[in-house]
Amino acid sequence: MVTDAPLREPRTMTVGVVTLGLIGGSLALALRDRGIAVSVWDRNPTTRATAREAGLTAFDELEDLAASGVDLLVVASPLFAMSDIMVRIARTVPPHTTITDAGSVKERVRESVNAAGLGSQYVGAHPMAGTEKSGFAHADPHLFDGATWGLTLAEETKLTRALLVLQFITRIMSGRALVTTDRIHDDSVALVSHLPHVLAHSLTGIAATSPNRELAVRLAAGSFRDGTRVARGSATRNQAMIVDNSRAVLGAVDRAIELLTDVRDALDATEPGTEELTEFFTRGAPIVERASDGEASESEVSLDHANWAEQLLAIGATGSLVTGITVGADVAQAITVNVRGNM
Amino acid sequence: MVTDAPLREPRTMTVGVVTLGLIGGSLALALRDRGIAVSVWDRNPTTRATAREAGLTAFDELEDLAASGVDLLVVASPLFAMSDIMVRIARTVPPHTTITDAGSVKERVRESVNAAGLGSQYVGAHPMAGTEKSGFAHADPHLFDGATWGLTLAEETKLTRALLVLQFITRIMSGRALVTTDRIHDDSVALVSHLPHVLAHSLTGIAATSPNRELAVRLAAGSFRDGTRVARGSATRNQAMIVDNSRAVLGAVDRAIELLTDVRDALDATEPGTEELTEFFTRGAPIVERASDGEASESEVSLDHANWAEQLLAIGATGSLVTGITVGADVAQAITVNVRGNM
Repeated sequence: MVTDAPLREPRTMTVGVVTLGLIGGSLALALRDRGIAVSVWDRNPTTRATAREAGLTAFDELEDLAASGVDLLVVASPLFAMSDIMVRIARTVPPHTTITDAGSVKERVRESVNAAGLGSQYVGAHPMAGTEKSGFAHADPHLFDGATWGLTLAEETKLTRALLVLQFITRIMSGRALVTTDRIHDDSVALVSHLPHVLAHSLTGIAATSPNRELAVRLAAGSFRDGTRVARGSATRNQAMIVDNSRAVLGAVDRAIELLTDVRDALDATEPGTEELTEFFTRGAPIVERASDGEASESEVSLDHANWAEQLLAIGATGSLVTGITVGADVAQAITVNVRGNM
Repeated sequence: MVTDAPLREPRTMTVGVVTLGLIGGSLALALRDRGIAVSVWDRNPTTRATAREAGLTAFDELEDLAASGVDLLVVASPLFAMSDIMVRIARTVPPHTTITDAGSVKERVRESVNAAGLGSQYVGAHPMAGTEKSGFAHADPHLFDGATWGLTLAEETKLTRALLVLQFITRIMSGRALVTTDRIHDDSVALVSHLPHVLAHSLTGIAATSPNRELAVRLAAGSFRDGTRVARGSATRNQAMIVDNSRAVLGAVDRAIELLTDVRDALDATEPGTEELTEFFTRGAPIVERASDGEASESEVSLDHANWAEQLLAIGATGSLVTGITVGADVAQAITVNVRGNM
């Protein structure tokens, strides 16, 4: 077992936040409000000045923030900037600093992290929160209240790094973690976030190009309004999100085309294919029931130092959340995670 | 100009409601609360007894209600029962009674109406309201408060019949009417209601058959929740709704497959096809802007006795709503409709 960084009492954790968009800015303000020592960097000098007015410690140079030796460095940059930022961090960051991120796609971030030689210091993270807005001006310290964070492990992930990020999520941010791999994360968000965005834009696109557009929109009721809500956000940002996860989104879109083709064939028959349609309309029943199932069991799981990653991934695979973590002063002692969900 | 039924002061209008499901029941209770003389029929004796307890006049036989000579008979039956019900109504209904309905598809209802020889007495209607619930037990007199009603005209539609139903919608039910043809109505609801239902079931179906189902559902945020809301309703009812409008839904699904195929091809390219994706993500912009455009102009339009149907259809084609109607005691006098919208 590699113990390459000492764990500290969470309340004394020092945190750096890299770039102050909606996500990084909200995170920095939330940490400030919780009394955590937080320092930040953003490429925009005006944003840095605004951050200082908000009581944050802002570095002028990313390399200086990385060199400052914070316990945890959270990179909340847009995906296209990740590669460059990781290279710059790697120049000065000390080995004891753990690095995480807030990117909505995890495989590509890890590629950037590994290319910069930071793989053993890194744990992937993705807070499942956001709004249609963007930028530090819209940052909200309560954006992550009660949020579920995807947390991703890989071969090279170290136990103490994972524990530190779990403590950060559950103790400092009062969130809960769904532990998984980069691949499963990216496949899953393609299904539950990116595909809904694509379908929402399909709905608005189809209505907008209909000859009866004006009238059809007036007839629209709840199902159209809800199904198209996210298409009201930035088309540019939605497009970038899809492209960032193109491999997994492609799979999800192909599956959607497959199901829609079943429906069109069933409807095109002289007598609509009742059996095929019933299969189509009832296929989602397990999900629908799950969504209305408000109950969740609480349990504690002791992590085995040899199999901690497999254990955490197994918890995540059932859809169960890590809601808390207790670690002795010495990591060789017992590690207990609180689990809420289907276990 | 054919004036085949005298118009009455709306408050003295007598109304019959045929079958007491969620829609018919809610309509009957709303009319009762507004002091309108309402009589009803339902095939279920228990429902008729419950209706009487609710203060409604319930006929034991549909033919007797039809023979009673109400000004307006609203058929709120499921589509599959329409054909039989229209034949039974035709046996006894007097020529002065106007017939309308509340079906979510209009071409098929008109076929039943015409087959029963009732075409010249009929005006199509579709109140755009409903819930996931069904049955008289869930009837709610406020279900139609402020609702938009689709109102459909055909070659055989008589002016006085249309005016009577417009008065019923705008004066008695305090709703507003979107006037159109059966075909445009059915095409439009396929786009703004039925296709969203099909896509919602695609989303739940894809998630439910994913190997990462449990985890994916836990990661689901707002876009999945909203995009799948209507899949939480009755799968049986959703299926029936799609089949009832199969011609138009098939066209809408084909268009969805077409757009999704563009997306998948753009994503599948070595360098994701930026131009194609931008086109996909911005195609719906006119609809999105419309939806956030809260302003609407109010105007009055005088109906010409020779071209009244074309005028009303033109108002509907722009997505404008008829919100009121003023008719002289003699229909040969001026007819003024209040219009809200894009005119």
